[in-house]
Parts: sequence; C-alpha cells; structure tokens
Amino acid sequence: MFKFDPYQQYMMPAHFGPRNRKAPSGWYHNVTSMVVSYRTDREKLSAYLPEPFEVAEDPIITIVYSCNKEVDWLAGHGYNLIGVNASVVFNGAVDRLEGFYTLVMWENLADPILTGREVQGIPKIYADIPDHSVIGGVFRAKASHFSSPIMEMSITDLYYPSLAELKERQDFMEGRDNWMGWKYIANPDGFGSMVSEPTLFPAETKYKALQMGTGSINWESLTWEQNPTQYHIVNALAELPIVEYLPAIVTQGSTNLAVEGVPVRALK
Amino acid sequence: MFKFDPYQQYMMPAHFGPRNRKAPSGWYHNVTSMVVSYRTDREKLSAYLPEPFEVAEDPIITIVYSCNKEVDWLAGHGYNLIGVNASVVFNGAVDRLEGFYTLVMWENLADPILTGREVQGIPKIYADIPDHSVIGGVFRAKASHFSSPIMEMSITDLYYPSLAELKERQDFMEGRDNWMGWKYIANPDGFGSMVSEPTLFPAETKYKALQMGTGSINWESLTWEQNPTQYHIVNALAELPIVEYLPAIVTQGSTNLAVEGVPVRALK
Amino acid sequence: MFKFDPYQQYMMPAHFGPRNRKAPSGWYHNVTSMVVSYRTDREKLSAYLPEPFEVAEDPIITIVYSCNKEVDWLAGHGYNLIGVNASVVFNGAVDRLEGFYTLVMWENLADPILTGREVQGIPKIYADIPDHSVIGGVFRAKASHFSSPIMEMSITDLYYPSLAELKERQDFMEGRDNWMGWKYIANPDGFGSMVSEPTLFPAETKYKALQMGTGSINWESLTWEQNPTQYHIVNALAELPIVEYLPAIVTQGSTNLAVEGVPVRALK
Amino acid sequence: MFKFDPYQQYMMPAHFGPRNRKAPSGWYHNVTSMVVSYRTDREKLSAYLPEPFEVAEDPIITIVYSCNKEVDWLAGHGYNLIGVNASVVFNGAVDRLEGFYTLVMWENLADPILTGREVQGIPKIYADIPDHSVIGGVFRAKASHFSSPIMEMSITDLYYPSLAELKERQDFMEGRDNWMGWKYIANPDGFGSMVSEPTLFPAETKYKALQMGTGSINWESLTWEQNPTQYHIVNALAELPIVEYLPAIVTQGSTNLAVEGVPVRALK
Repeated sequence: MFKFDPYQQYMMPAHFGPRNRKAPSGWYHNVTSMVVSYRTDREKLSAYLPEPFEVAEDPIITIVYSCNKEVDWLAGHGYNLIGVNASVVFNGAVDRLEGFYTLVMWENLADPILTGREVQGIPKIYADIPDHSVIGGVFRAKASHFSSPIMEMSITDLYYPSLAELKERQDFMEGRDNWMGWKYIANPDGFGSMVSEPTLFPAETKYKALQMGTGSINWESLTWEQNPTQYHIVNALAELPIVEYLPAIVTQGSTNLAVEGVPVRALK
Repeated sequence: MFKFDPYQQYMMPAHFGPRNRKAPSGWYHNVTSMVVSYRTDREKLSAYLPEPFEVAEDPIITIVYSCNKEVDWLAGHGYNLIGVNASVVFNGAVDRLEGFYTLVMWENLADPILTGREVQGIPKIYADIPDHSVIGGVFRAKASHFSSPIMEMSITDLYYPSLAELKERQDFMEGRDNWMGWKYIANPDGFGSMVSEPTLFPAETKYKALQMGTGSINWESLTWEQNPTQYHIVNALAELPIVEYLPAIVTQGSTNLAVEGVPVRALK
Repeated sequence: MFKFDPYQQYMMPAHFGPRNRKAPSGWYHNVTSMVVSYRTDREKLSAYLPEPFEVAEDPIITIVYSCNKEVDWLAGHGYNLIGVNASVVFNGAVDRLEGFYTLVMWENLADPILTGREVQGIPKIYADIPDHSVIGGVFRAKASHFSSPIMEMSITDLYYPSLAELKERQDFMEGRDNWMGWKYIANPDGFGSMVSEPTLFPAETKYKALQMGTGSINWESLTWEQNPTQYHIVNALAELPIVEYLPAIVTQGSTNLAVEGVPVRALK
Repeated sequence: MFKFDPYQQYMMPAHFGPRNRKAPSGWYHNVTSMVVSYRTDREKLSAYLPEPFEVAEDPIITIVYSCNKEVDWLAGHGYNLIGVNASVVFNGAVDRLEGFYTLVMWENLADPILTGREVQGIPKIYADIPDHSVIGGVFRAKASHFSSPIMEMSITDLYYPSLAELKERQDFMEGRDNWMGWKYIANPDGFGSMVSEPTLFPAETKYKALQMGTGSINWESLTWEQNPTQYHIVNALAELPIVEYLPAIVTQGSTNLAVEGVPVRALK
C-alpha cells in the first residue's frame, strides 16, 4: 500500500513516489530574455486584480520572453516562456509589498506548467513558443496555440546602456522582484474552490550581458474557434491600451528558482 | 477589481473570467482506441494503491490508447492519450465500488492535462503520442518525452468477436466503468498538501465498431537524464510483471466526459 | 565500393542502397479531404504557368487539403497536405491534355516532400498542417511555417449531394484527373538547371463518403521576416482574386499514388 | 506566362519567381557544435563510397551535431543537424583532394534539406533533433524519426585544450575542410537518373570557444516498421565498428555556407 511521506514533495501521480530529488540545483544556467513593458490604463488593468492586489502607482504591463537552456531540474533540457505581469501592490492584512502579479504565463513544455500551477500558483498555460529569431539586430519572439497566433514581440535599436539609462528600468531591475500569483484549485465538479489564495515566489538572476532598445508588442484578437481554451485571456490583454512603451531590455544570464532560505509562500 | 462568481467554473488564470462555456457538449465525436490488458502481480501492484483502494480480485493492468478527434470543448480539435489503469476496489467508509484506478495518463496536449489534474484529480502528464499507425492489419501506438521512448503497444490478429468472445472482456466493456483517481495539490513550498483525496469521474462511450486481437506492450527502463520528470513512473510500470495478456480490443466510437446527472465527485 | 544498380530506385543518400521496397502498395487507406475551388482571373493566373501550359477554359484554382492515414509506404503512418492546383491545358508538341497543374503543395512530413520533388517533380514544400477540426458541422484546415500563418480554409453547410449536384464539380470528380508539375533541379552553384521539364503523375481514388458544402479560403500576406523561404509564394496566391467559389467537397476514402501501368512520366 | 531568368536561382515551385535574395549573407551567427569521431573498419566503410571516392589513410567517421541559431537566410531562425562524414580521398580524372564525404545528414527543418539536396547534392534527410542538453558538464544530442530513436551522442570530461592537444584533431580542424557529396536525381518513374555526380561544397568557420573531451555514440538498430524511409541507413551506420574514439570537440562560433569566390561545384 502506498503512504505519503510528510517530509517529501509530491505531485500527481503521487503513488509512484516523491518528485524527483536528483536535480543538482534550481538554476537555469543559460537564459536569454526579452523584456517589453508599457504603461496601460489603470482602470482597465484593475479589473483583473483580485483583492487585496492593487495597481501600482505606475500602471505598467511587463512582458518577459525567456529562452531557458541548461535547466538543472530538467536534466539540462530547456523550454521557452512568455509571462505577462502587472506592476502591483499587495495590500494584505499581514503582508504589504510591491512587485509583479503574473496575469498569465505561456510555456512550451508541460512539466514546468504543472509544477508552477499546482505548487506555486503561477497561472501557466501552454503555447507553441519557438526560439526567438535574431536578424539585422532585431530580436523577435511569438506565441501561438491550436495554430492560431497569440502575440508577437520585438526589440530593435539595441545598445549597451549607461547606468543612468538602466535606471529608467529600475522597476524591473532593482529591488522589487517580488513575483506573485493566485493559486486556485476547483472542486471535483468544477464549481467552487478547494484552494484560492495569493502566493509569493522568488527568483534570483545573474546577468552576463544586458542591452536596451525599443520594444513592441502585437496582441491578436481571437474567436473561440481559433483558441477555445485561451481566447478570452488573449482578448482581455489585447484590449488593455498601450499608452507608452518603456525602454525594452535584452539579457543573457542565469536564473535560480529555488532561492535558498526564501520558500514560496502564501500571502496574507 | 476581480471577484469570483460562486456559480461559475474557474481555472488559473481565474481573473480573466470563468472557463469557457461555449462548448456545445462534453462529447468526443471521433475516438479510436486500443485497449491492451494484462494480469500482473498482486503484491507489486498493491504497492502503488493508497488506502482505501485495494487490488481487485483479478489483478489486471489495462492500458488504453485513444486518438480523440472532433472534441467539442476543444472547438473540434483533438489529442491523443495513453492511460494506465489498475482494476481496484474502493473500500471507503461510505463508498464501496469496483472500477479502474488511473495510475497515470499521458496526453499530448496540455489543455486536457490541466483540467484533468486540477479538477478531476486524474494524474495526467505530458508525452509525445503520435497518431497510431496501421500497417498489415497491425495497430501500433507509442509515447515518448524529452525524445526518450516511454512505451509502445501493438494489437495484431484482429477479428470481429462473437458475444461469447466479448464476454472475456466484460471487465472492460460492462458495468464496472467507474474511473477513479487521487487528487493531490501540494502546499506552496512543495511540502505537505492542500488537497489529498480520492475522486470518481464518469465516462460514457458509444461504439461504432469493435474488434478483438492479440495485444502486446513494451515498457522502457529510463534514467533521470533521459526523462527527468517521469523516469520513476516508467520504471515502476516496467517492473510490474506481465503474467498473461487478456484479449486486446480496438474500438471506434464516441465518448462523453460530461455525463448528465453524474458529476465528478470526491470518494469517501 | 558502392555501385548503382540500374534496375533499382534510388534517392540521396543512394550509397546505402535502393529506396525501400518493403511497402505493400502505393495505397493511402484512410484519407479525409477538403476541396475548395474558386474562379480567378485568367490573366493573373497565366503569369505563373510555364509554356506550354495554358489556363483552361474555366480559370479555376482548386485547393485540396488531405489528412492521410494508414499510408502503406510509410509503414502505416500518415501526414497532411494542402495542394494548390490550377485548371490547365498542356499544349505540348506531343502531349495535349487537360488537368491540374500543381502550383504548390504544402506537406507536414519531409519524406513525401523529398520523393515528390525529386522524382515526380511536384513542388512540395513544408508547413505545419494540424489535423482538420470539426465543430458544429464545420470543417477547418490551416497551414503555417516559422509560426506564421499561411492560409486557412473551411467548409460549412455540408449535405449529401444528388448526382445532379455532383455534376457541378465534374471538373474535379470526373475524367480529367491528370496531375501535372514542373521538375526543376538547379546546378550545384544554384544558377541554371540540370533538370527542367513538365511531368505527369497519376492518382486513383476510391470514395467511401462524399458531402458538398460552401467553401472559403483566407490567404495571408507575409513579409520575408515572417516566412523567409515561402513569402513570395503565399503573396502571389493571396493576390489571385477570388471571383466566385464553386461548391466545396468533403470526402472520405482511399488514394493510390502508384497506379499500375501508369508510371509518372515527362510531358513533351 | 512564366519564363525562367537564366541569371537567377530557382527551386520548385520556380514559377513564383527566383529564390529569395533578401538574405543579408550566408552566415550562421550562433552555432554550437559537438564533434565525435571514431576509427572504423576500412573495408566496411569502403562499401558505401561510390567511385572515385576512396577511404582516407585513416578510416575515420566524424559525426557533427550543430545547433544553428541566427541564420541569415532563414531571417534569423535556426535549426539543428547531425551529419555523418567519412574521411576520404576523391581520386578523379581532374580533381584529387582529401576531405569529408557526407554519408548522411539529418536536419530538423525541411527548408535547408531541400536546398542542400537539390542544389549542393548533400544527402540530407529529416529527423527530430531537439536542442542539445547540458547537465553536470555533459553535452548530449540525439535524433529520432517516426518517434523511433536513431542515435544519441554525448561528450564528457570537457577541458580547454593546449595547442598540442588540438593537433590530435587537425584532421577536423585544419586544412582538409573539403566537404563532398553525391548529387542524385532519379527519372520521373523512379528508375535510372537524370543527375548523378559528385559535388564539393565549402564552409567557413569562426570559433569563439573550443573544448575537447571524451565522445560516445550509440546507434540504434531499426526495423522497416519503426522507420520505413531510413532504417537501412541507420542499420548500415550501426554496423560500422567503432574501433577507437578520437578526442571529441565542443565548439561555439559561426559558420558561413556561402564562401565568397568558392562556389559549390561538381567534381570531375
């Protein structure tokens, strides 16, 4: 008979034993990222934030594409992601912090989607996300599902920034790297919830190279027939106005998702 | 501000609104299945069953490959799956029933994996599962992940069975189509659980054509490097002895996963 | 030392021996097709026909999507294709015949692309072509490459036609099933040709089911950045006007591409 | 009416105009390669060489995996390849040179397969080739087709070599980078040839980083059912004995396949 060991980490199917503990670390050793941010409409963005999240002083949407290679927990394989994050303040009874609330994160590999959703509460869903292309100095990335495009993003006019220029993006680069989600698990019949709570998950990044440039995003508008499980998400994002782009960023480096001494936790 | 509507069904990300309710039904209109079953060792199988599940009188493993087309909730798209099920008795304080406990189910599309895991508690994980091939009257299906094979199955010597022959597989064809899983959701830090309970999910099937034949399964043995997230599952299945094959089945038909009046529910 | 056997069929790499002769036949046993045709502009179409091809009396473009399963020469595996064909007359010194000139054919598997190009002279190129979807009685198919859409097609309002209705599409269904291409192989430096000649390739079809309906095609307009190897093809097709749709067709059946006694041959 | 321009480069379909001339160069700007070589049996290798190719003094098989990114002619997209090359002497009536004869090259993108085969005469065929993984300092690459593994290769114990150590692989690194193939195009009926001649194609490489290590290759043995179009190729390679491995190489750099003033040409 199978019995759960309370000192182990499990995911479904749990009865074959705990999640693999062979990964040498939580590091992603080879990560190329494109970061495109824009100011949007505070009212419209606020419609997607559950209490006690509030839109930050500056209503910014930050989209991060990452091409992750040499991922330790995947035995050195990799995957790509595109995350869409809102600048927020979490204004809880106990916790009060600024950071990014992940509105949605597309990934092209199921394994990190399952872990991210069921453990950390990150709203990850699947998309085809090919490796970014680089031609004529322009970085491009895109996502699609059911063969229907979701979005594409590009960064042009790249240059190595001065410290003063970097400061224009201190919202992304400094200090406020609190990443937050909302973990939600429905009852077996689909109605009501067994789990519904905000979460905080850490990330640690080391940069080997960083350039700044001019970003651009194009969101599609979709029908149910084109993308039956995600069209409402894409359409909601497409309707958030792009008031003004902030300087975009391209980075090479490495990322750690298992920061020592900083466990993922529920927010109160 | 986003607020949950208690009369709606949500999945992460919930804040963009309830799960799409545009699907005309729960029917999969075009399903081709290969069913290969074998008797195994009761003791060894029992090691993977959490209480109060028990191995059924006849310790049978039933592997179902399905090529699902014209799926209503996916706007007419499809996907493939390979499920591994144990014949069990659920011997609970309230519920007592015979049926299949799903040990693991591989699917080649993330969307039904997420719903199956987070709502119904079916232990679905991802694999590449190409459409089955048919050559010289032989049906073949296979699964792989991270480019490493997981298993392959085949059915040869197909014939249209008499009713007497069909009865040899009444374990699969009749009455006991109770499908059961164990829904498990870890805490945000990965340790311990927020949800851990057995579930029962219905399915309704209509057959247009049914043949019987001789089944065969080949499980791989894998290293962590080959399949870092699933090797322990594949190896556990590979070590369950194949004592004797039962007659195998190939079917064409349709399947309904939203049986009216029979909601998915927790077992007690 | 490797020597060519003049009585064998070879493709690169030839030195490992002749093309596999294990295929039981040239049959594709399980083929679902969508056929959408439209009248276009004679002048504009004629710009793409090399001499001595001429636009047929009725300037029709016929687009055929096929989902091919149980393909004998692929050991029972399958693939999908979308072919774009012009109704033409071949007006050669020796041969004079009506039929279809294949302007381009996208396929989602390299193996038939190589054989089709290098042996028969069919202008096959690669695209992602997912299996068609069927929802609410509507058939849909689409193609993309480098994650950029190429086209999508649909057929609605399907019905089982009378013989009189079928006759409206006798251009496709009867008699004139001469399929033609232009085989072209460049010199090693890319300039000029080693092979440049028209070809005729047979096909034999058996229908199990046939419906007629209302077809529709949507061609994309593409930049070099979006599809660097095919954008000029897609744009040329997008610019052919759709003057009027003919009744569309959905079929189930089987196809033979190795018709006995009718070899592929050059046209004179 | 379409007419060929003799000063342009065409591929099928030719009638939509010449091959795209928008590519800024022939450079692949970001290439990671794994090179594993071994000494094999001279007699057995010689069976696959058409006259006037001869096995070189040292009968070496060199397998090159390349992860190609930022490819100019693909608008900055990329692809992966695994080429298998024999050390040979071309002993023709006019040309006499040492170099590599490409026995077969697998690629995971159809576009370069078509160009390589039809223009240069490189025996490229399709395989699924995921990006290499890197875990614990070990590089791994693999290929499969129809979901059946073809081969896997790895390089361990990597170090930055001295010049003396590099010289052990001067067969690969220096001077003899003549890459050769055999261009073969069958008649339309499949028998006999329209083109059958040896070719020489150049490549220019710049290294940013180079490590040496211990290589290993594992070839599969396959049935027709597993890989109907390539099983005879894989089996032939699997039967070439691995007498001794040479030091293996991992490189990062860039490659130019359109070397100025060195056109691809036929060998005499």
